[in-house]
Amino acid sequence: MSAFDYDLFVIGGGSGGVRAARRTAALGHKVGIAEEYRYGGTCVIRGCVPKKLLVYASQYSEAFEDAAGYGWSVGETEFDWPSLIAAKDREIDRLEQIYRRNLEKAGAEILKSRAVLEGPNQIRLLATDKIVTAERILIAAGGRANPFADMPGAEHCITSNEAFHLQRLPESIVILGGGYIAVEFANIFLGLGTAVTLVYRGKEILQGFDDDLRHELHQAMLRKGCRIVCEDTLVRVDQKADGRFQAHLRGGECLDADEVMLAVGRQPNTIDLGCEKAGVELDSKGAIKVDDYSRTSAENIWSIGDITGRIQLTPVAIHEAMCFVDTVFLNKPTKPDFDLIPTAVFSQPELGTVGLTEAQAAKDLGDLDIFRARFKPMRHTLTGREEFMLMKLVVDAKTNVVVGAHILGPDAGEMGQLLGICVKAKLRKEDFDRTMALHPSAAEELVTMYEPTYRIRGGARVDG
Amino acid sequence: MSAFDYDLFVIGGGSGGVRAARRTAALGHKVGIAEEYRYGGTCVIRGCVPKKLLVYASQYSEAFEDAAGYGWSVGETEFDWPSLIAAKDREIDRLEQIYRRNLEKAGAEILKSRAVLEGPNQIRLLATDKIVTAERILIAAGGRANPFADMPGAEHCITSNEAFHLQRLPESIVILGGGYIAVEFANIFLGLGTAVTLVYRGKEILQGFDDDLRHELHQAMLRKGCRIVCEDTLVRVDQKADGRFQAHLRGGECLDADEVMLAVGRQPNTIDLGCEKAGVELDSKGAIKVDDYSRTSAENIWSIGDITGRIQLTPVAIHEAMCFVDTVFLNKPTKPDFDLIPTAVFSQPELGTVGLTEAQAAKDLGDLDIFRARFKPMRHTLTGREEFMLMKLVVDAKTNVVVGAHILGPDAGEMGQLLGICVKAKLRKEDFDRTMALHPSAAEELVTMYEPTYRIRGGARVDG
Repeated sequence: MSAFDYDLFVIGGGSGGVRAARRTAALGHKVGIAEEYRYGGTCVIRGCVPKKLLVYASQYSEAFEDAAGYGWSVGETEFDWPSLIAAKDREIDRLEQIYRRNLEKAGAEILKSRAVLEGPNQIRLLATDKIVTAERILIAAGGRANPFADMPGAEHCITSNEAFHLQRLPESIVILGGGYIAVEFANIFLGLGTAVTLVYRGKEILQGFDDDLRHELHQAMLRKGCRIVCEDTLVRVDQKADGRFQAHLRGGECLDADEVMLAVGRQPNTIDLGCEKAGVELDSKGAIKVDDYSRTSAENIWSIGDITGRIQLTPVAIHEAMCFVDTVFLNKPTKPDFDLIPTAVFSQPELGTVGLTEAQAAKDLGDLDIFRARFKPMRHTLTGREEFMLMKLVVDAKTNVVVGAHILGPDAGEMGQLLGICVKAKLRKEDFDRTMALHPSAAEELVTMYEPTYRIRGGARVDG
Repeated sequence: MSAFDYDLFVIGGGSGGVRAARRTAALGHKVGIAEEYRYGGTCVIRGCVPKKLLVYASQYSEAFEDAAGYGWSVGETEFDWPSLIAAKDREIDRLEQIYRRNLEKAGAEILKSRAVLEGPNQIRLLATDKIVTAERILIAAGGRANPFADMPGAEHCITSNEAFHLQRLPESIVILGGGYIAVEFANIFLGLGTAVTLVYRGKEILQGFDDDLRHELHQAMLRKGCRIVCEDTLVRVDQKADGRFQAHLRGGECLDADEVMLAVGRQPNTIDLGCEKAGVELDSKGAIKVDDYSRTSAENIWSIGDITGRIQLTPVAIHEAMCFVDTVFLNKPTKPDFDLIPTAVFSQPELGTVGLTEAQAAKDLGDLDIFRARFKPMRHTLTGREEFMLMKLVVDAKTNVVVGAHILGPDAGEMGQLLGICVKAKLRKEDFDRTMALHPSAAEELVTMYEPTYRIRGGARVDG
């Protein structure tokens, strides 16, 4: 019999923690998992899932407009934000129940409490102020929106957390940030009829993504009526007498808005977690330091997911959980594989991508063939909407391996997933070329780009 | 100087003929191309393109319904068929001009005439009754809808040709056929509000596709209100005094309808083409016999596309055209590659597929692992629509190669194209498994099916 209450105690009921707890419990180990808020974590409760539901909602306004090109006349349409939020909340409730039920079925003990470390094997449950012991601990407590607390008036602002629970749809919003969360919410609010100003300190939105896609999406958002102010930031937010807000930009401008949203990154949830009591070291950003196998500086404590400050994506946390269980409970030491992760931005148009951007590949590899197609998606030949699809393959000229694939347009996320298989398998351009086109589709462009659009040699563009 | 008027004469201005003419002319050869109707052929004028535009149109009715789940209330909607047809025709005109312009730019001579063979090197242009000569001839005259002329009353029926030009949207239609054209039109008319009865002599719609997808689509169509009568056919169609029609089924039933549509296959356009005068042999179905390089029984005559009765798909005709030019004008003998062609059916839900069906693979390979997921697409968690997505990977148990991939659901066509790359490259199941999921997407199911749903050994299902 074990000297501990649990073989494994998991702190945090998000995607990573739940997967690790379920799988370990299913192997017959005694597992406890504690979550202070709701099971499902960022992804289910205040991230990917509710975000995508809001994206779907926001796309109908364009569908109503586009229908005219196809012979439809659509009467007065009205959007009711509280109905959407209620519907979204019902779905989140349903998903949370599934998460809990799966944990139960696997035999894990579910605790509704904030849990903090008291020692290498000790966890304090704040709900009951009880201390439990565990042979091994997995910290999967996730992250939170950066509150940007140094800015005067930050307390007047919302983050993505609150955006999911606003009482009413703002008529106008200022969003600070240029990352995927800022861009996705800008498009959601645009689609729902809000006047949106995006303020971003960088030169162009979506840093880290391929430049062509960044520019094309920027232009598409402008055409939808978004205002985008780059190379600027907010220095102060004031509340006015009428309850609305004034956002002061560093450049001197002052914007009135119903809401000001901060989307300036996320922080690991290590505050007051007791890491120091258990010998768990943090890095300079407050994230938990882990080795290649997700083990912390404490012998019997591992950590996965957003709190480690590695790659903040649901499937990555799940993958880390699977590797953790393989390593620790199945004697199969397995390092998470972070190479060539496909991702999407659920902007409008959508963005799907995997592998190296052109700029990164030019730097790393020097000699590239770039295949690029820009066209109006077939649907919009009749709607008249000025929206373009962009597809780009970055090919290593020395090996002909497709090292990056980048899509902007309808269904880009789905395409990104499947291009992820191709790029991960290191398929070469001729593997694309020898595939028969499927007509009419957008993706057929990816297998019919026979000649490079331009070439890069020694890191510089040489023709095109 | 050549003794002939043309180095190459192409009969037929569809996708295959135009590609061959353009490419050959661009190489500096003297090329003539004759088309009796409109440049663009079946695909552009009366096939893939107008079909997909009608599909888009027909999808809005469900979008209007679905919007309610997302907080939208939509006023009275109305659909005007003539507006759609006019918009579609404008787009077809635009595309036809592009086809013509591309031929002109390449330097091909464009003739608006029916052209028939008069001898191995002679072509009669019926518009002018002029005979021209050519060193080489390419027959790419395509196919036409089977008129089903033996059925009494066939003259009262429409085919897909006429469906694109109906004066008004029928309130009710009986469609004979169970192939992709019948199924696509059934869904188009359903979406536009027509009462649809599909009559098909086979046991299940979409013969040749994976059985799971066939059943699932059948069920989805029933839920949309389609009536599907399998294992029956039409024996007679009468016109009634009011101009409407009565379709008599072999089983005894008699259906009243505004239109009766025949979608019972297509026939090669070899009638009165003069093949016998040029020594071009036909097969028992009237299609032109060709060798592996698309050469006919006449030394200097080749044939590509639907008229050869090989695989009737636009990209295949284009591929055959490219191989023809490589072989004949670039001294690079190249056989068209017909292996592992991805295809889609633009039904609702959509179907995308590549490789072997489970049944075929069980027969050919014996030992399979089947990975299958069936789930409600995320959009429909809020719409309440009872529609399911089906994804299936057929894996050769001996090699772990994914030999078939079959999708039913939104964006299945786009997915089918990209799965086409994976299957053509003979990727194995572990190539799918090691790809990180992209969340939330539908396609992520394809990389997260870790355990077989069931196994097939020696051609028979052994568990699941």
